[in-house]
Amino acid sequence: MVPSLQKLLAALRRLPGVGPKSAQRIGYHLLRATREEATELARAVVALKDRVGLCSVCGNVAERAEGVSDKTPLECPVCADPRRDSSRLLIVEEPYNVEAFQKTGVYDGLYHVLGGLFDPLAGVGAVELGLDALARRVSGGSFREVILATSPTTAGEATASYIHELLKPLGVTLTRIAVGLAPGADVDYADEISLRLALEGRREYGSIGR
Amino acid sequence: MVPSLQKLLAALRRLPGVGPKSAQRIGYHLLRATREEATELARAVVALKDRVGLCSVCGNVAERAEGVSDKTPLECPVCADPRRDSSRLLIVEEPYNVEAFQKTGVYDGLYHVLGGLFDPLAGVGAVELGLDALARRVSGGSFREVILATSPTTAGEATASYIHELLKPLGVTLTRIAVGLAPGADVDYADEISLRLALEGRREYGSIGR
Repeated sequence: MVPSLQKLLAALRRLPGVGPKSAQRIGYHLLRATREEATELARAVVALKDRVGLCSVCGNVAERAEGVSDKTPLECPVCADPRRDSSRLLIVEEPYNVEAFQKTGVYDGLYHVLGGLFDPLAGVGAVELGLDALARRVSGGSFREVILATSPTTAGEATASYIHELLKPLGVTLTRIAVGLAPGADVDYADEISLRLALEGRREYGSIGR
Repeated sequence: MVPSLQKLLAALRRLPGVGPKSAQRIGYHLLRATREEATELARAVVALKDRVGLCSVCGNVAERAEGVSDKTPLECPVCADPRRDSSRLLIVEEPYNVEAFQKTGVYDGLYHVLGGLFDPLAGVGAVELGLDALARRVSGGSFREVILATSPTTAGEATASYIHELLKPLGVTLTRIAVGLAPGADVDYADEISLRLALEGRREYGSIGR
């Protein structure tokens, strides 16, 4: 195989869900694609690294406006929206979970993105998830309710439980999304209806046995 | 979703085998990846379009050496290798089929890559596959044997049959790769067509190495 194709296939194989066969299919597709299509992809990857980062307030994905210095802290569209209800905070694992909850159309509060879940084997704990910053945000804010919306998996429940203990002394109402998701299901794969039901059916943390 | 991420996901979704979910997973992966990993991918895509094209002789993938004008016709590694047996020609659908036959280690002749198969609904016929160029190559060459190695599918058989009719007047020996039971397959589970083809293609015991 020619070196440029080999290099591209190696770079593609590093992407999640792309094995040798898919890398090959994508590589040969790009070989046949127009220069515009290929350039657009390459540019989009570079632009992502140049302009997109995490919101300094909530950890959601945020984009830098053109011409703004990369030293300026980023603010995501949700945090920048003054119409959001600042008395509620919904805690999720990943930025794409924010997208999913936004699509339900039944939540207009703020978010906090953990960027993961407890994972002792990978060395991910309270420090790595920045839970001290979360506690500072909640104690310094005017939240009446904090919704724990991590996946109902072992790691998601462990993380929710820890955050519950951490925020309990702050006197806010802590709720947990509940119905609509099967135990063991991943928030990322749930449809909008299930997510909406889970959101609407939330109960005060600890009020239901699991 | 922020625009740069949206643009990247749109570009990724255009790739074969990449749906909305995989695009999202790849997008967020790149967001978290080092700038080096992302840049390497973007550069590899651009380099592919800049330096890789099709061999002007056989249609296989070929790479332009650095500093060579993009007006110079490309020659693939197989065609450029003087040790290859120029009396045999193996006809395949795609450049990656060349890779696969090369890996068998039992073929040292030349290749001809069609770049597809007959597909009447998509308007792909003899002209689109450049079969006149194939006929010119065979009539102008010194091939003793031409091996039809398209897939044993309806489209592959139709293409092989057409090429057979096209090249028959040129007086070369035309052969077809063997079709039968896959190695390791169980006779008990084979369908009738596979069994019939395996039976019709039988050879004297011991005539082929395994």
